[in-house]
Amino acid sequence: VAVKTKQKNEYPIGIFDSGVGGLTVVNAIKRKLPYENLVYLGDTARTPYGTKAGETVIRFTRECVAHLMRYKIKALVVACNTASAYTLPMLRRNFKIPILGVIQPGARAAVAQSTKGRIGVIGTRATIHSQAYPDTIAKMRKSAHVISKACPLFVPLVEEGWLEGSIPVGVIKKYLTPMLEKNIRSLILGCTHYPALKPALAKVCGRRVEIIDSAEEVSKELESVLRTKNMSSQNTKRGTQKYLVTDVPEQFNRVGGIILGRKLQHVHRVALED
Amino acid sequence: VAVKTKQKNEYPIGIFDSGVGGLTVVNAIKRKLPYENLVYLGDTARTPYGTKAGETVIRFTRECVAHLMRYKIKALVVACNTASAYTLPMLRRNFKIPILGVIQPGARAAVAQSTKGRIGVIGTRATIHSQAYPDTIAKMRKSAHVISKACPLFVPLVEEGWLEGSIPVGVIKKYLTPMLEKNIRSLILGCTHYPALKPALAKVCGRRVEIIDSAEEVSKELESVLRTKNMSSQNTKRGTQKYLVTDVPEQFNRVGGIILGRKLQHVHRVALED
Repeated sequence: VAVKTKQKNEYPIGIFDSGVGGLTVVNAIKRKLPYENLVYLGDTARTPYGTKAGETVIRFTRECVAHLMRYKIKALVVACNTASAYTLPMLRRNFKIPILGVIQPGARAAVAQSTKGRIGVIGTRATIHSQAYPDTIAKMRKSAHVISKACPLFVPLVEEGWLEGSIPVGVIKKYLTPMLEKNIRSLILGCTHYPALKPALAKVCGRRVEIIDSAEEVSKELESVLRTKNMSSQNTKRGTQKYLVTDVPEQFNRVGGIILGRKLQHVHRVALED
Repeated sequence: VAVKTKQKNEYPIGIFDSGVGGLTVVNAIKRKLPYENLVYLGDTARTPYGTKAGETVIRFTRECVAHLMRYKIKALVVACNTASAYTLPMLRRNFKIPILGVIQPGARAAVAQSTKGRIGVIGTRATIHSQAYPDTIAKMRKSAHVISKACPLFVPLVEEGWLEGSIPVGVIKKYLTPMLEKNIRSLILGCTHYPALKPALAKVCGRRVEIIDSAEEVSKELESVLRTKNMSSQNTKRGTQKYLVTDVPEQFNRVGGIILGRKLQHVHRVALED
């Protein structure tokens, strides 16, 4: 049994995302858990999920996670906020491994940091429409006041690499001015692309607003879950990363380079129909 | 035989688009051919195509057009520029009805209107990457000078309804200034969403640049093809429109309202797997 447990500890962690944005989560997990092996699946052929209906997001996510299970993943992180908002109950019914989304950790950090004052949440149209952040925050602190805003221009800005200057600052102001006027004290980046805009966001928000990156928060939770369940890797050398995508990899590599600030390697296309 | 021909003339025209943008083509066809029945299929579950690889676009388009064929369409218009750029040879091999894309008509209008001077082309990343417009224009006039630019921010601007003001004008300037400095005389809107930005584009481009809307051009060509082949409807009352989408219809209805300036009716979700 000990041997079996040890083997299982070396199984990879699966990371699912609707596309390329989840690489920010990969980065955070690599920093926090450098010895773990990672398998990333980005559904780049059908990305984005953030403009689509909940039931479509559920169907696509189920197909992707079924594919990831072939890699004997020991735990799953749903890096995509939209998928986290809609699919966790379905995934937990269907797959018997620890499954973490990004909503809960992000919400917890915001509640911890904003003992008073309002909490801002930004994300895709589908994530905001799902009410997942306000609902989760309300369960943690009934009195919390959450102001949400969908920001559909942010993803294409990041994918163009327009991260600073008058255009992103103008777009950020247009989206955030109403919640800034209502004195939010923390701002949850409820989409994996958004950390790339953090400097411009911080400039518009000013010092009084704490910016919360769900990627950081979920990696802390993952570390805690693996430790508690005695599932951490016993490796003493750095883990490997495998990247799977459903479209050809060119666009993933290009945008991945912008998000990670370095070139990607080991990117493979997979067919979900197999 | 006469009866059979007459029946066939009343079959609908199929219009395929990757999502909602093709509604500009529906509008143009309705104006030009008010008595024809139309069936529109928008692949809203997998939209956009414009950021994806050619072979993925080909696979998705084949599935969608196979679905449209169930409606006994007598002709097909591929409204999506990206699909037009990649899929026409495949479609013409597989489906034996007249099939029109938007590239050829747009290119022809640009060549006709720019007896001298350069031609600008804007579209999605995939359309521009395909080189479909420059290649088509070169076949029409060898000496033509084409300057292309992918403008990935334009679609989300339209979908937000941000059609005028400092943000769209700033984005347009950032994309178009280099080609305007090279004195283009015509500008092809190589994406079905872009006509919604026409006033802001015209403001930045000035009077010397003729703006060419492929939706208008393909509707003229469709009229000519149906007339030449003796396939026009003999109806004396206005044709019907049926709208099919692969995601739930809410987002389609919302953005369709922005693009058409009126509410949509008769929108149905379909499953391509059926």
